[in-house]
Amino acid sequence: MSTNKTHQSPEEWWSTSIIDMKPGSIRIRGYAIEELIGRVGFAEMIYLMTRGELPTPAAAKLLEAALVAAVDHGPQAPSIAAARMAMTCGVGINNAMASAINMLGDVHGGAGEQCVALLNTIAARLGGDATERRIAEVVEAELRALPEQGHVPGFGHRFHPIEPRAPRLLALVDAAAADGSVSGRFAAIGRALEKMLAARKGRRIPMNIDGATAVVYAELGFAPPLCRGLFVLSRSVGALAHAWEEMQSGQRNKGPIPRHLLWNYTGPPERSLPKEPARPE
Amino acid sequence: MSTNKTHQSPEEWWSTSIIDMKPGSIRIRGYAIEELIGRVGFAEMIYLMTRGELPTPAAAKLLEAALVAAVDHGPQAPSIAAARMAMTCGVGINNAMASAINMLGDVHGGAGEQCVALLNTIAARLGGDATERRIAEVVEAELRALPEQGHVPGFGHRFHPIEPRAPRLLALVDAAAADGSVSGRFAAIGRALEKMLAARKGRRIPMNIDGATAVVYAELGFAPPLCRGLFVLSRSVGALAHAWEEMQSGQRNKGPIPRHLLWNYTGPPERSLPKEPARPE
Amino acid sequence: MSTNKTHQSPEEWWSTSIIDMKPGSIRIRGYAIEELIGRVGFAEMIYLMTRGELPTPAAAKLLEAALVAAVDHGPQAPSIAAARMAMTCGVGINNAMASAINMLGDVHGGAGEQCVALLNTIAARLGGDATERRIAEVVEAELRALPEQGHVPGFGHRFHPIEPRAPRLLALVDAAAADGSVSGRFAAIGRALEKMLAARKGRRIPMNIDGATAVVYAELGFAPPLCRGLFVLSRSVGALAHAWEEMQSGQRNKGPIPRHLLWNYTGPPERSLPKEPARPE
Amino acid sequence: MSTNKTHQSPEEWWSTSIIDMKPGSIRIRGYAIEELIGRVGFAEMIYLMTRGELPTPAAAKLLEAALVAAVDHGPQAPSIAAARMAMTCGVGINNAMASAINMLGDVHGGAGEQCVALLNTIAARLGGDATERRIAEVVEAELRALPEQGHVPGFGHRFHPIEPRAPRLLALVDAAAADGSVSGRFAAIGRALEKMLAARKGRRIPMNIDGATAVVYAELGFAPPLCRGLFVLSRSVGALAHAWEEMQSGQRNKGPIPRHLLWNYTGPPERSLPKEPARPE
Repeated sequence: MSTNKTHQSPEEWWSTSIIDMKPGSIRIRGYAIEELIGRVGFAEMIYLMTRGELPTPAAAKLLEAALVAAVDHGPQAPSIAAARMAMTCGVGINNAMASAINMLGDVHGGAGEQCVALLNTIAARLGGDATERRIAEVVEAELRALPEQGHVPGFGHRFHPIEPRAPRLLALVDAAAADGSVSGRFAAIGRALEKMLAARKGRRIPMNIDGATAVVYAELGFAPPLCRGLFVLSRSVGALAHAWEEMQSGQRNKGPIPRHLLWNYTGPPERSLPKEPARPE
Repeated sequence: MSTNKTHQSPEEWWSTSIIDMKPGSIRIRGYAIEELIGRVGFAEMIYLMTRGELPTPAAAKLLEAALVAAVDHGPQAPSIAAARMAMTCGVGINNAMASAINMLGDVHGGAGEQCVALLNTIAARLGGDATERRIAEVVEAELRALPEQGHVPGFGHRFHPIEPRAPRLLALVDAAAADGSVSGRFAAIGRALEKMLAARKGRRIPMNIDGATAVVYAELGFAPPLCRGLFVLSRSVGALAHAWEEMQSGQRNKGPIPRHLLWNYTGPPERSLPKEPARPE
Repeated sequence: MSTNKTHQSPEEWWSTSIIDMKPGSIRIRGYAIEELIGRVGFAEMIYLMTRGELPTPAAAKLLEAALVAAVDHGPQAPSIAAARMAMTCGVGINNAMASAINMLGDVHGGAGEQCVALLNTIAARLGGDATERRIAEVVEAELRALPEQGHVPGFGHRFHPIEPRAPRLLALVDAAAADGSVSGRFAAIGRALEKMLAARKGRRIPMNIDGATAVVYAELGFAPPLCRGLFVLSRSVGALAHAWEEMQSGQRNKGPIPRHLLWNYTGPPERSLPKEPARPE
Repeated sequence: MSTNKTHQSPEEWWSTSIIDMKPGSIRIRGYAIEELIGRVGFAEMIYLMTRGELPTPAAAKLLEAALVAAVDHGPQAPSIAAARMAMTCGVGINNAMASAINMLGDVHGGAGEQCVALLNTIAARLGGDATERRIAEVVEAELRALPEQGHVPGFGHRFHPIEPRAPRLLALVDAAAADGSVSGRFAAIGRALEKMLAARKGRRIPMNIDGATAVVYAELGFAPPLCRGLFVLSRSVGALAHAWEEMQSGQRNKGPIPRHLLWNYTGPPERSLPKEPARPE
């Protein structure tokens, strides 16, 4: 599918519904920038930019909570390590941040996006009936369709037996659902997934940060690829803080392990080129 | 300068004052993450991560205003164009955002950082005396030290004769200064710079978004490299929104201009290799 | 699948079969670096690094031809435009090259990889019988399995009715096949694909640069993901040359179109925030 | 300095002397691509793309030797570690290569560039007189102008007491100088630098790979920023080989150290938010 028209002008080639400019005027989604500054929060601005409209106060609060939750998970994460390493290599702080963000791929940064897609699939199958029983039925069918050993995005953690961030985010969703600000349906699906995963595996596979932010983002109606984008915005804060801390260390060319250690070599033993040169010299 | 110690363990090699983890526990600058979620805003979290302490409410509000102000300046900016182009090339949305951020270098993203450094230099020279007259004196001396044709970071704009964001941000700084939340000294220096630049050049060179956010960040005490980082966090929102809009277009391999146009070729005319091969075949 | 062992040492965590070092000694795949320098060509070194062994002279020559063929396709390619734009933003030349390479994703840089995978699938189905008739049969079955409107990676071009690089590369493969240096099987499959695509579509869909380099790489036995990597090595040369040319231009913040042009705005008309602030101030 | 003309057309905005295209025709610096393929080597193509003309056979051989020499220095280098880490995060192999290259900044990838600049400065001061005595004089003056503790780019190594690559590259330069293919002047300057550094420091500070490739590139007349670019092209081969090796490992989210190790936390002890919320909820 392509929307290329054959003879677009350069101005048509660069079209957007996000921002309009005239000399002296910048409007975001129709609002004058000077009106937004000081009136809307950063999380609200993120919502406006990506969704086209301002969020309700309840939606803004949930979005903000999810953005706060995922800023950092320490320098063992490849992204954060990369920000720190890059900062010692003589590049700008923006380049160090870019190197970090560039690693938030399908495996490192995509679980939230994948979990939102799963939540949406389940919600769509529910149709109008979101009783606990019906949710259980659909979730079970969905899990059965996954390979037995399969990993369910948003659940399980290598390090935390109990994930400290997920219950707090779910409690905020519950509070918003209680006053009708959000449906609460995705929190119910998330909890059903957690329950049935435990039954299936015979041990608790707790909802993790990707699962909990996915519940928030699904409740707010964010499309899956945007969810990865929101995670990037959040983790960029960690990348910045770590890059800045490393910048102050004065290290040069910081590699992954201290320099008195060396890697394991597992390749062929010492050998020489054949006597005959590999090509005419 | 290097802080490498010869025999650090791998754990010492990766030290940080930002985040501590134990199984089931994540603490940011000493605070449990589950306590921060829902209690502090995203801008406050950014402050905590980069500065080590939570901001005052007034500081949080100013930081938030500056972050809101710089999210986007349209697809003619190389960074935003890059996010859109990358998104049509079959990469993840994080990669598209990284490509955008990677362009926020000294020229595209560094004016705020440079302006904060200039404001700090001037403030340091003021010493205890921040009267209008003393500020004018120091600013004039500082400007005289710059090359006549030199560009002063944070002032002037190719497109906007009046920059709509700067006066709004300065008004917020003024309000915070009025109740003693910030010193107001950097706003005064910024205005003096604008005034004397105009006198020097014989035309108005208005403070731009980089200058206005620099005033905010200097009032809040952010170190110059962090200011570029804050700009990156802000403009990342634009990169995400534009990447997402482009993703929905279905375009493939979007180059800078429509495909019925071609570039100007300015190189040597058609020619052939010499008869003799360039090297033995 | 994961090979994480629970208690690897940091040295085991960083294992490689590519390079071994001792103080004063660097060995690549077992060969002393000082023996390789001046004895093997750059293309041979690429082969040794990625494959573990030195190529035959014929293989080196084919690899070199494919690397030469794909260095550049002009500044309308998003990658090359990005290199030029980045270079005007105040970043290092390596950052500009990284921004370019970061765009060589599934759509912009992946067709060769996908075409090698297709060629390998077809070759595997041939089994021992690689007669023209058998190839035609298998290719036809493979094409029938693709969606009618589907794009076949490595074939067709938006710009070139006849692709100037493909016939030359295929002629080199033919010459190598004639003296037994390569099998020639993948060239035969590639030509069969081109022929049957034309029959299917009722017009010529010529093999393009991705298809032709895929034939070369498949003949040489490169795994599909390495083929994207080889394309990256090749196109990096274009990224460097264009970044350098742009660096000499002295441009600042070069966007996609000249600054007297503006983008089309397609979003909501001018509007104001509601009277009530979006959240308590 | 800016070359922006006010009303360039989009075609003029995108001008280049590198490549010309018409339907069915691609010319690089005036040469038809199909003529270059199979006739010129990859190193020659790199020279043609970046310099505008084909190299002499002797120049091509020296360039090739320098490109071969720098492909890899192991996974302790931040760039190579980044390529491997990125590859386990669910991104494309081009993204992993971009993350590596993005780290070849002033500190990690810039020493060669800086050394070429130094060699050029010294050569310019020599004027017509390149006797050993005059070189010694100018080099000594140049070293005296550097801070006592200063690092001289291209000399010294943390790991190798004797650098195995440098003597081999210098021997190739000597051979080319002996038959008049290059001047040999930069090799002489490099050796003088090494000798006087040793005298100054009271211990050997051997020329390293950056210094040796700088001698080669200076002899060939490459401008300093291009030298960093050539290093990027060379080290990209290492990035590709390591990314590919890591891809085959099946690792997910490979951080810098094994997961049973944790970083040192050096920040504030456990603490709680103040009772009063940080802002109105």
